[in-house]
Amino acid sequence: MSTLLDKANELAQVLKESEEFTKLQNLHNEINEDEVAKRMLDNFRNVQLELQQKQMQGQEITEEEVQQAQKQFELVQQHEKIMQLMEEEQRMSQLVGEVNKKITEPLEELYAVDNTEQ
Amino acid sequence: MSTLLDKANELAQVLKESEEFTKLQNLHNEINEDEVAKRMLDNFRNVQLELQQKQMQGQEITEEEVQQAQKQFELVQQHEKIMQLMEEEQRMSQLVGEVNKKITEPLEELYAVDNTEQ
Repeated sequence: MSTLLDKANELAQVLKESEEFTKLQNLHNEINEDEVAKRMLDNFRNVQLELQQKQMQGQEITEEEVQQAQKQFELVQQHEKIMQLMEEEQRMSQLVGEVNKKITEPLEELYAVDNTEQ
Repeated sequence: MSTLLDKANELAQVLKESEEFTKLQNLHNEINEDEVAKRMLDNFRNVQLELQQKQMQGQEITEEEVQQAQKQFELVQQHEKIMQLMEEEQRMSQLVGEVNKKITEPLEELYAVDNTEQ
């Protein structure tokens, strides 16, 4: 199956050279070099991650935690670079989603036949 | 971003023409045409799906349900075609996993830099 992985490598290369990836990379680097922005973003992500983990484990999320997350979000919302980064991450995630959808189309079609027959 | 989606289409085409996909497709068709095998597989999958959903919703799984799932699994294990299909599905899933890993490598690298810096 080297051809399939070769194609995947080509795709990764195209992704790496895309405008979307370059923008994302630049914003990343800029934020990493800005200590205040970096800490703000890290805090925000940690709070998000904690809440997600709690939710997945079926643990209750307190009103205080919701308010803390809300506060962190309001903070990062005021930081233009972080907001730009998040927008670019959103765009990249959509792009990767579209790519994945295309790739698994043959499998979707195969399994769709099963469902319509049931 | 037409280039990226073009590449994804090329990849889907290579996947569709791969030996792995052809095998999977043939086994699928054979089982779909075999009423007994099809029903056996559907039953097995429905039981699996129910248990998964229960688990994800944090619901308790009874001893009886575990035994029922075990029985269904023992049944399909005796059906050579179904076992072949499951093996091919496993292989396809690994392949798609490898492809996805390759594609998201640029992003992994970008985020890995963050983590080592922390």
